[in-house]
Amino acid sequence: MINITFPDGTIKSYESGTTGMQVAQSISEGLARNVLSVGVNGVVWDPGRPIEEDARIVLYTWNDDQGKSAFWHSSAHLLAEALETLYPGVKFGIGPPVDQGFYYDVDLGDRQLGPEDLDKIEKKMTELARQKNTFERRAVSKSEAIEHFTKKGDEYKLELIDELEDGEITFYTQGEFTDLCRGPHIPHTGIIKAIKLTNLAGAYWRGDENRKMLTRIYGITFPKQKELKQYLAMVEEAKKRDHRKLGAELELFMFSEKVGAGLPIWLPKGQAVRERLQKFLKDEQEKRGYKMVVTPHIGKKELYVTSGHYAKYGQDSFQPIQTPRENEEFLLKPMNCPHHCEIYKHRPHSYRELPVRIAEFGTVYRYEQSGELHGLSRVRGFTQDDAHIFCMPEQLKGEFLDVLDLTKTVLDKMGFEDFTAQISLRDPDTPEKYLGTSETWDKAEQAIIEAVEESGLRATKEIGEAAFYGPKLDFMIKDAIGRSWQLGTIQVDYTLPERFELEYIGADNKPHQPVMIHRAPFGSMERFMSILIEHTAGKFPLWLAPDQYVIVPVSEPFNDYAYQVKTRLAQADITGEVDDRNETIGRRIRDAEVQKIPLILIVGEDEEKAGSVSVRIQGDGDKGTMSIDEFIAFFEVEKERGV
Amino acid sequence: MINITFPDGTIKSYESGTTGMQVAQSISEGLARNVLSVGVNGVVWDPGRPIEEDARIVLYTWNDDQGKSAFWHSSAHLLAEALETLYPGVKFGIGPPVDQGFYYDVDLGDRQLGPEDLDKIEKKMTELARQKNTFERRAVSKSEAIEHFTKKGDEYKLELIDELEDGEITFYTQGEFTDLCRGPHIPHTGIIKAIKLTNLAGAYWRGDENRKMLTRIYGITFPKQKELKQYLAMVEEAKKRDHRKLGAELELFMFSEKVGAGLPIWLPKGQAVRERLQKFLKDEQEKRGYKMVVTPHIGKKELYVTSGHYAKYGQDSFQPIQTPRENEEFLLKPMNCPHHCEIYKHRPHSYRELPVRIAEFGTVYRYEQSGELHGLSRVRGFTQDDAHIFCMPEQLKGEFLDVLDLTKTVLDKMGFEDFTAQISLRDPDTPEKYLGTSETWDKAEQAIIEAVEESGLRATKEIGEAAFYGPKLDFMIKDAIGRSWQLGTIQVDYTLPERFELEYIGADNKPHQPVMIHRAPFGSMERFMSILIEHTAGKFPLWLAPDQYVIVPVSEPFNDYAYQVKTRLAQADITGEVDDRNETIGRRIRDAEVQKIPLILIVGEDEEKAGSVSVRIQGDGDKGTMSIDEFIAFFEVEKERGV
Repeated sequence: MINITFPDGTIKSYESGTTGMQVAQSISEGLARNVLSVGVNGVVWDPGRPIEEDARIVLYTWNDDQGKSAFWHSSAHLLAEALETLYPGVKFGIGPPVDQGFYYDVDLGDRQLGPEDLDKIEKKMTELARQKNTFERRAVSKSEAIEHFTKKGDEYKLELIDELEDGEITFYTQGEFTDLCRGPHIPHTGIIKAIKLTNLAGAYWRGDENRKMLTRIYGITFPKQKELKQYLAMVEEAKKRDHRKLGAELELFMFSEKVGAGLPIWLPKGQAVRERLQKFLKDEQEKRGYKMVVTPHIGKKELYVTSGHYAKYGQDSFQPIQTPRENEEFLLKPMNCPHHCEIYKHRPHSYRELPVRIAEFGTVYRYEQSGELHGLSRVRGFTQDDAHIFCMPEQLKGEFLDVLDLTKTVLDKMGFEDFTAQISLRDPDTPEKYLGTSETWDKAEQAIIEAVEESGLRATKEIGEAAFYGPKLDFMIKDAIGRSWQLGTIQVDYTLPERFELEYIGADNKPHQPVMIHRAPFGSMERFMSILIEHTAGKFPLWLAPDQYVIVPVSEPFNDYAYQVKTRLAQADITGEVDDRNETIGRRIRDAEVQKIPLILIVGEDEEKAGSVSVRIQGDGDKGTMSIDEFIAFFEVEKERGV
Repeated sequence: MINITFPDGTIKSYESGTTGMQVAQSISEGLARNVLSVGVNGVVWDPGRPIEEDARIVLYTWNDDQGKSAFWHSSAHLLAEALETLYPGVKFGIGPPVDQGFYYDVDLGDRQLGPEDLDKIEKKMTELARQKNTFERRAVSKSEAIEHFTKKGDEYKLELIDELEDGEITFYTQGEFTDLCRGPHIPHTGIIKAIKLTNLAGAYWRGDENRKMLTRIYGITFPKQKELKQYLAMVEEAKKRDHRKLGAELELFMFSEKVGAGLPIWLPKGQAVRERLQKFLKDEQEKRGYKMVVTPHIGKKELYVTSGHYAKYGQDSFQPIQTPRENEEFLLKPMNCPHHCEIYKHRPHSYRELPVRIAEFGTVYRYEQSGELHGLSRVRGFTQDDAHIFCMPEQLKGEFLDVLDLTKTVLDKMGFEDFTAQISLRDPDTPEKYLGTSETWDKAEQAIIEAVEESGLRATKEIGEAAFYGPKLDFMIKDAIGRSWQLGTIQVDYTLPERFELEYIGADNKPHQPVMIHRAPFGSMERFMSILIEHTAGKFPLWLAPDQYVIVPVSEPFNDYAYQVKTRLAQADITGEVDDRNETIGRRIRDAEVQKIPLILIVGEDEEKAGSVSVRIQGDGDKGTMSIDEFIAFFEVEKERGV
């Protein structure tokens, strides 16, 4: 008999050799139908693999990343099986699961695939899936593996086998198809109900441009047709909301080849949104006792040697800046924390002054390869809504609660209703990977867990996901079309206070080391903006919209009145423009709609006489005529409503 | 006979060989008494030097930099004469005029000078000055010059002579003392009425640390005793107002050795002032149609090759930043203009959209030698209140007028009542030094001159001071203790639009090149802050003060009430703190005074019962008890008054 420990801590006895699937069946048939893979002592296994010793297990379904990953990995094998059936002699590179789906790199000789081929392959995959073939795992010797693929004449698999140790090689077979594979796989192909091959691309074998270009076939599969349909609709919608497309159309930001890839330039309208976001956060922070600072974008190399950033990132990032005379070297700052530590350190602190909360909209630079850059979400220069809290260990929970509250306030205001958190804790089995004593870690983790519980936030705990310098918490949000994004982060840090020898004088009149919290509710202005654009489809809520209104005078004689209205509204801190172009009213209203301007104010003879405006809300039609004061009151109400 | 042209354009005939002094005498005896040097065709001469050809002349007095410079240069010779009298055998390095006074580097053998020696030297200088010795200019051959100083045994002067061409060497003699000197000098020593030797320092011969350390004696002199007295009082006052001292005391900014010299870190209180300054300017600019952007702090080297900055500054500034892979090089941006040109260029422009006004609080980095760094006024990283206006040539005057008005609005608001402008024009005699056609320059200069005249600003015109890319205007302000500072600048630029191939489509439907105006009313936030701190002696006006008030509860039971008042005031956008330290009221009031907090609000039992505060204004005593609403109204009035 063996003991199986479940995630909730309960332990049950099973016969040795019981499989994950059998464990699932012992709980319920419904669960068993949904099991895709099984976590065994932290490693993901096939549901059908016998467990022969005591183990901690987790049963993964479609709702878990580990379940999806096995599902898509098995789908890649299904694709390969279909290809081998349709194109005998095809050779295979690698076929892994990816973030959304899977791919397989294949060598089809001289054959070029087109969209009609993808249809044919999809059909074949569906046909094979219906056979409900199981994925059979088999350990093979290296010589047996070599023999198999020599016979097939697949030099790619042979190259991969060549790099493996004898004794660690496994084959997986479903139906007629056998692949070199580490697994894990799902119980059988019949679970794969909905199949879509999404794309074709070229890919060099092993990413080496000197080697052969293979054909990469991308696909995605689901356990239900409905899910595929939803996915395809979401992809369509995501394309429309692509922040790079909307960013250009709405003139929010731009890139310039001469300035450099991945270095965003915020255009006036984007900057208007950014400024409102920053002002909102700044005001919230001020209420909570944060103090704003401004620090340089460079620092001496020595600063980052002290902080440890140079050792960790120095080689892979922007290289040091030399100076013409005087032997100094500077680095573009990759983080603001070293600067904030220097601020904390510039004078002594009493425990009575703690917590010290130093905030900065600090622009940092990190080198990313050009291939990894993506709009505003993956850039080389970005502005963090950064702050560092220096506090006594006993203040940690209170500060954490306050940061949680601040982050929730921010996400609420932005209209993200669906968010959860992930608490990353240390792995107690590998204490050598973490800095600081076990006791300190216990206290810090306990403080975070308690704070999260008190705050009522939905959160998962992930063991072993903590940073080496302390536990952390990340916020995950769902956007308007159901995609998940990781946003703000809160991290506890014992390392930097030690490296910078930070101190406070305690009530005992002796020096003590403060704890540091890093936190950024937005994460970065750039990444947050990219998410916000896609979440709102560029139709920002009234309080954030770069132009909150446009005034359309019906004809030239009313331009003056239009500008008078604009001046009145500016005094009430309402921002917009007059569109006095020589175009029809219809055309100007349509242009305002394309520009996603929330309010359109039409003025003509009646309005000028009455001192009023005719109000239209985007997507909500005519709101009638209002005096300017009425409009201002109306605006404030709509703004509060979050329109 | 020769023709002498005066600055106002009038021409008079004189006999050939007439001196500048004689020209002055021909105008008035009073003027002649005050003439210190004479500009002859753009070169500064002794007043006694005969003019033998037609010339443009300017008579310089103590009110002109050229007059002061000759006065202090002559004073350096007087110092040397006194030293030679007192310490026979002394050898002389160089003795130039400087910004405030003069110095002489001398080799006194083993003799060490002390303060009592300076007194003695001052007395001797006064005695020699009373002899009213004239400064006699004499051209000498190189061999004669070598003979003279070989006889004296002065190896320093011999080294200087060695580097001169025969035929260009002149000696100046006053009384018994002769120096190798290019001049010019004042008529005689008798004009030097007030003398103060201010400092002693070591200085390596020719600035080379491998050569001998000479003694540098600093001094300053004036034509009147009263002026010396005023100067010394000003120096004392300036010491008290030194922004580096006040910046540390008031915790406005700091520097960190590890971050790097010349890289200012704005602490919370400094940042509060900076933010208010920026908000004020931003609002003013928005009214005037400026649009804010944010651009990265780096750009590809190519960008600065295009702009010409790399060719001009590349070698002497921060060196290019290499990247680990991909052969790209980036530069820390020394200016924002190339980025703004790229913004202008990112889409086509119609003449109807012009002027385009792009503004940014852009932080730039320029390498300065560590010896030249000085507090916030000379730094390696600073934030310009930058903007670039792209307009049609015919819009230049209008835009210039608007920028002048903006700059005046800014200076008024800051309490600088005394300011003038300098218009820098091209030298029409050297057209090859300037980019663009003579016609374009004429139009631009005319536009500036007319704009300045219409604005009613007091301005001087300086021929030949224009930048190679266009004419410019600089604002000069006088601070509270009478010192002059150069502030904001406005520059017209034809080069960058050409280098970046900027265009707009004109009414003729053809492409045209816009003109660019660079402008920055503050200049930089850092430099402006340094001037503002010294101007206000750290006592910022109410609207700018980082803490506008402090609340002092008379004892612990009233702390809660104090915090309630703080919350009420925060809602009214009035910023301050509660000082609830366990200190006496007197001590806390004194501390608030040291911190230069404008308003002190005392709260105790009476105030809590009445919902009021007792108000004290710094330096203006008790204002009595007010309800919170009364205080808010009082605050707004005082703020408007510029208290």
